[in-house]
Amino acid sequence: VPVADGLDLRQIAAMTTGFVGADLANLVNEAALLAARKGKTTVEHAEFEESVERVLAGPRRSQRLVRPQDRRRIAVHEAGHALVACSLPDTDPVHKLTIVGRGLSALGYTLYRPGEDRVLHTRTWLGNYIATLLGGTVAEEVVFGEFSDGATSDLQRATEVARKMVAEFGMSPKLGRVWLSAAPGEGASPACCEETGREVDLEVRRILDEGLALARTILEERRPALDAITEALMARETLDSRELQEILDEHPHKVAG
Amino acid sequence: VPVADGLDLRQIAAMTTGFVGADLANLVNEAALLAARKGKTTVEHAEFEESVERVLAGPRRSQRLVRPQDRRRIAVHEAGHALVACSLPDTDPVHKLTIVGRGLSALGYTLYRPGEDRVLHTRTWLGNYIATLLGGTVAEEVVFGEFSDGATSDLQRATEVARKMVAEFGMSPKLGRVWLSAAPGEGASPACCEETGREVDLEVRRILDEGLALARTILEERRPALDAITEALMARETLDSRELQEILDEHPHKVAG
Amino acid sequence: VPVADGLDLRQIAAMTTGFVGADLANLVNEAALLAARKGKTTVEHAEFEESVERVLAGPRRSQRLVRPQDRRRIAVHEAGHALVACSLPDTDPVHKLTIVGRGLSALGYTLYRPGEDRVLHTRTWLGNYIATLLGGTVAEEVVFGEFSDGATSDLQRATEVARKMVAEFGMSPKLGRVWLSAAPGEGASPACCEETGREVDLEVRRILDEGLALARTILEERRPALDAITEALMARETLDSRELQEILDEHPHKVAG
Amino acid sequence: VPVADGLDLRQIAAMTTGFVGADLANLVNEAALLAARKGKTTVEHAEFEESVERVLAGPRRSQRLVRPQDRRRIAVHEAGHALVACSLPDTDPVHKLTIVGRGLSALGYTLYRPGEDRVLHTRTWLGNYIATLLGGTVAEEVVFGEFSDGATSDLQRATEVARKMVAEFGMSPKLGRVWLSAAPGEGASPACCEETGREVDLEVRRILDEGLALARTILEERRPALDAITEALMARETLDSRELQEILDEHPHKVAG
Amino acid sequence: VPVADGLDLRQIAAMTTGFVGADLANLVNEAALLAARKGKTTVEHAEFEESVERVLAGPRRSQRLVRPQDRRRIAVHEAGHALVACSLPDTDPVHKLTIVGRGLSALGYTLYRPGEDRVLHTRTWLGNYIATLLGGTVAEEVVFGEFSDGATSDLQRATEVARKMVAEFGMSPKLGRVWLSAAPGEGASPACCEETGREVDLEVRRILDEGLALARTILEERRPALDAITEALMARETLDSRELQEILDEHPHKVAG
Amino acid sequence: VPVADGLDLRQIAAMTTGFVGADLANLVNEAALLAARKGKTTVEHAEFEESVERVLAGPRRSQRLVRPQDRRRIAVHEAGHALVACSLPDTDPVHKLTIVGRGLSALGYTLYRPGEDRVLHTRTWLGNYIATLLGGTVAEEVVFGEFSDGATSDLQRATEVARKMVAEFGMSPKLGRVWLSAAPGEGASPACCEETGREVDLEVRRILDEGLALARTILEERRPALDAITEALMARETLDSRELQEILDEHPHKVAG
Repeated sequence: VPVADGLDLRQIAAMTTGFVGADLANLVNEAALLAARKGKTTVEHAEFEESVERVLAGPRRSQRLVRPQDRRRIAVHEAGHALVACSLPDTDPVHKLTIVGRGLSALGYTLYRPGEDRVLHTRTWLGNYIATLLGGTVAEEVVFGEFSDGATSDLQRATEVARKMVAEFGMSPKLGRVWLSAAPGEGASPACCEETGREVDLEVRRILDEGLALARTILEERRPALDAITEALMARETLDSRELQEILDEHPHKVAG
Repeated sequence: VPVADGLDLRQIAAMTTGFVGADLANLVNEAALLAARKGKTTVEHAEFEESVERVLAGPRRSQRLVRPQDRRRIAVHEAGHALVACSLPDTDPVHKLTIVGRGLSALGYTLYRPGEDRVLHTRTWLGNYIATLLGGTVAEEVVFGEFSDGATSDLQRATEVARKMVAEFGMSPKLGRVWLSAAPGEGASPACCEETGREVDLEVRRILDEGLALARTILEERRPALDAITEALMARETLDSRELQEILDEHPHKVAG
Repeated sequence: VPVADGLDLRQIAAMTTGFVGADLANLVNEAALLAARKGKTTVEHAEFEESVERVLAGPRRSQRLVRPQDRRRIAVHEAGHALVACSLPDTDPVHKLTIVGRGLSALGYTLYRPGEDRVLHTRTWLGNYIATLLGGTVAEEVVFGEFSDGATSDLQRATEVARKMVAEFGMSPKLGRVWLSAAPGEGASPACCEETGREVDLEVRRILDEGLALARTILEERRPALDAITEALMARETLDSRELQEILDEHPHKVAG
Repeated sequence: VPVADGLDLRQIAAMTTGFVGADLANLVNEAALLAARKGKTTVEHAEFEESVERVLAGPRRSQRLVRPQDRRRIAVHEAGHALVACSLPDTDPVHKLTIVGRGLSALGYTLYRPGEDRVLHTRTWLGNYIATLLGGTVAEEVVFGEFSDGATSDLQRATEVARKMVAEFGMSPKLGRVWLSAAPGEGASPACCEETGREVDLEVRRILDEGLALARTILEERRPALDAITEALMARETLDSRELQEILDEHPHKVAG
Repeated sequence: VPVADGLDLRQIAAMTTGFVGADLANLVNEAALLAARKGKTTVEHAEFEESVERVLAGPRRSQRLVRPQDRRRIAVHEAGHALVACSLPDTDPVHKLTIVGRGLSALGYTLYRPGEDRVLHTRTWLGNYIATLLGGTVAEEVVFGEFSDGATSDLQRATEVARKMVAEFGMSPKLGRVWLSAAPGEGASPACCEETGREVDLEVRRILDEGLALARTILEERRPALDAITEALMARETLDSRELQEILDEHPHKVAG
Repeated sequence: VPVADGLDLRQIAAMTTGFVGADLANLVNEAALLAARKGKTTVEHAEFEESVERVLAGPRRSQRLVRPQDRRRIAVHEAGHALVACSLPDTDPVHKLTIVGRGLSALGYTLYRPGEDRVLHTRTWLGNYIATLLGGTVAEEVVFGEFSDGATSDLQRATEVARKMVAEFGMSPKLGRVWLSAAPGEGASPACCEETGREVDLEVRRILDEGLALARTILEERRPALDAITEALMARETLDSRELQEILDEHPHKVAG
């Protein structure tokens, strides 16, 4: 199946940052399959975009079994991610957010567009990334008073980033410039030393607490924007970056990250 | 074996929430087998309902070896589960409770009907679920003064839920929003850090203690209802949701969860 | 080999509680073999009873290498088990006790007859069971001033029961209703948490100390009965439940468990 | 190869206590081989006795590479074992002691004759056994001021016995009647609990210290007997039980174990 | 493919210190391949030099996806390594530094020329080596205020060297002359002893902190040289030892290591 | 290849103490090979001596890549070993010392001649052995102010000996007569008990510190002898026991071990 003329490969490449060989092969197969199913003779942008999402988040769930109150909670959650990301400088821009679930565990998802090959990350950028990851459950707390168990992979990812900052990047002022993960073949790994392990744990929590506080400040101060994105998601299920920006423009940002 | 006309598949689906592929295949096989054994030419609701229970709880025990005093204890235990579940808001409704054992370990059991595809669970819901799980042994304590070792899987399940709340969902105010289970390939797992592990243990116990107190309050305040359900179980062995509701209506609820 | 007419299968079933499939197959083989060896054409009660003991305790030791002073110690030990069991309410009745060793490690043994399918055990019953297990070495202490290393499997069993009470049944008031054994696949097992492990250890010891004190009180207060059972064992080697009861009737019980 | 008439099998059996099947088969093979090598047509007592030692301690070392000062130290060491054993009541009698090494590690050795099938061991007997094991290095200290590294298997054995007393026999007053070794398949082994492990360690050391003090008291008070046995070993290399007893009779015992 | 006449093999050998057999075979293959690709009939110095780098750092990255601000950060980072190395006595001289990435993880790299077969390293030399390794991220801090996650292999290497100094070379005054890595087959490895492991951790951090302070002092005092090397790298991408020396000569060193 | 007449096998045997079967086979092969290479028809003493060294220390390094300053450091290091060994009573006499490296890691080496089959080692002998092992780096400190990383196997060996003294020989006054290495199959190894492991660590360090102090006292007091051996090694590369003794005779010993 040939690729359609005029296809902007750069735009697709921007969405596939972080893909490895197998992912890309998978992507091309999916796109060709989708085009064939629609009876098209060439693969166009729509097929590639749909394929990127299938590879990232699994097939679209056809059944509508989500309870209304859960559906609203999902909308609030995704709105939280997107609003924190858009409120902080130098984060990856939001490409699309949706409450249509895909795969087994994702209830909804937010896609980011890195746009450039970012290879270096500072402490500030990583802290903002953690705030974005925690933005979903914080939005639930802000709107409903308590959050749910639907976003444990966000929490796991945020904890991993915080742990790397402390134990691999040397970014904790308390522990200093030191590598604390066990290297293969090294006799004495720090995992055996309780007191150092405890220091790492406390620094990881401090970094997570800072990200939590940052997300909470943003979402409480921009509550009208949060509500507006939520309502738009409830009405339209999916928002692209342009639609999101329109809502944000109506509720301008007054918080600095 | 064809399915009988007019079979309400939605009702069966409601009982099979949480089933995965293999369970469903198993369910259909069982139902067809039961129908064939009875000489029926189509599979009807009765066969499906019996099959759901076989899949969930194993084959019905034919031997009646349980001592009379143990039989009463089992009735009290199941009545405890059901009464706590019915006394708390937003829990899964009780579908059936019985003191006829199935499989190797179950002495009796209580089936819940989720009814809807609940995909998100808040701290409140999880706390009520723990209270329901502990309701069986608490009822034994309330009635007999001490409980037995017949419900360790309830205790294990309740502890697992409490541990997930603390270590995977970030729902402990003391430990905060952090992921504390070991991720595969991660160098320093928190299992090595005594002090953090101890904090998790104490939070798990606190959550279990709260669930215990909640169950105890309900069962002490609704003692007449507990006794009435017990007597009904001793007389009829099995109660469906309608029969249970009739008893509860005679002993109205005055406790708020 | 056919089974003899009039064989009371219920009596045999009562002795085989806790047997699993392989044990029962083993039992029937042994009984048929014994009958064949004796030239019988049917398997009678005697063959089944002998077989139950072979399966439970191994083949009878033909050599008589035990020193006289050790033989008396074994008699005291078995008398201790039996007397504690008979002095406590609601324990399994003693079926037979003997100082004729079987298998590799057993110096003597006491067989209990559960009689009914007890499926639930309370804290009180488990505590009495521990006292019965410790009764053997306590009797040695009462009679000889110090005990021997011949009963480590009793001690191991008593410790396991006490550990289960604390870590699986939630029966320790100090640790509360919590499951503390590692479940397969669970990330953070409590075995890694020193302080909780220590709490478990101390509760296990407290339960064992209570069982020890209970056994000691019984055996010191019923010393004449202990001596009488010992002398009967030295004279006859084996006592069945009727013979044991006759001795107990001559030394009536004044201790409450 | 047939066995000689009039062979006292009971005497050989007394030396082989603790042998398992493979050891006995080994023993018979060795004895037949030795008899064949000597051109004998029947296996006599001498061949069996030599074979028992080969099986217990390995082949006799033909090379004489031991330095004179080391040879004296070995004699003192073996004399220490033998004298402690003979000075305590109820220990296994010494059958033979020698400074002719066998096998790879043994510099000399002392053989004990259990004589009867001792199946039960009290705390007193085990304590005396530990004192006997430590008697070798204690004798070195008494005579030379410091001991050597030639007896680590004695120390390992003594520590194992002390550990079993504490962790498997329940013989430590501090830890009480409890089983502390990990049972296979048990979730929480005490090896994970630092504080309990430390208690075991300290009790093990206390028991070893008591054995050490007992051995030291005996050897210091019976120094003339120690020196006499040493000189006899230097002169004759090997002493049997009769020769040892003659020396002991000349230096009568005034210490009670 | 024959080697060109007049090739200075000593110069190539100086670059390959630390290569093992497989690396050298790899190197010759690469050089022959490169020469063949260029249509040369002999392998010349240029092919060997390019091959050394391919073996050390992987193939040159053809795509230019690095963002401009990241490119400058990489230049500052490499300039930091080189300037610290050149400012300390007795370190390996810098052979080349570049911001053209190679392989998967390296963003840029600095090659050192050992020149002689250094087989012994003192505490002073190792401390200077650590300062050189940390010089990259320190330069980022000096210029941008915070450093990035692009140099975790530097941090890992520096930590490993510091750990070896403490645990294998006996160079920590606090822990003294002792070997603390687990030897294979040794029973009690120090990795099990929390307090010793903690002492090692703290000494490792102290050594790293000293290296950090040393690198920071040099880079702050020689900021003009740092900026000049950075600008040269931004302009020319790669600097050889002569070009680097020219810049250093314009900004003479006033700091003593 | 036959062995030359008049070969003093006792002298070779004295050098091969500690060899096991495979080493000896290796030795004979090497000697035959060396003789064949030299065109000899019999294997003489020279071939055996060269072979002993090849087996002990690997093949002679042909390349001379060691820097002059490193060469002097190696001479000082080996002189330190030899001088400490010769200054203490009852140690194995030095057979040869050299700064010509062999094998992969050895920079130089000192060969000792046990001369007799020493099978027992006291605390004093082991302490002197540790001082000899540490003598190399101590000499570096005395002469150059700091030592290098070239002798980690000495440090590892010294630590192992000290650990054995404490944990296997029962030679620590603090821990007493106890075996602390994990025996295979034993449940509770002391490696799990932090506090005992720490006690072992501290005793190991104390023993090492004593050996260090002993070596330092000797080398500081006999500095002229140290310098003289160093200069002789720089001039002649290798010293045999006679040449070493001549130097020592010129600088008589005034220190007692």
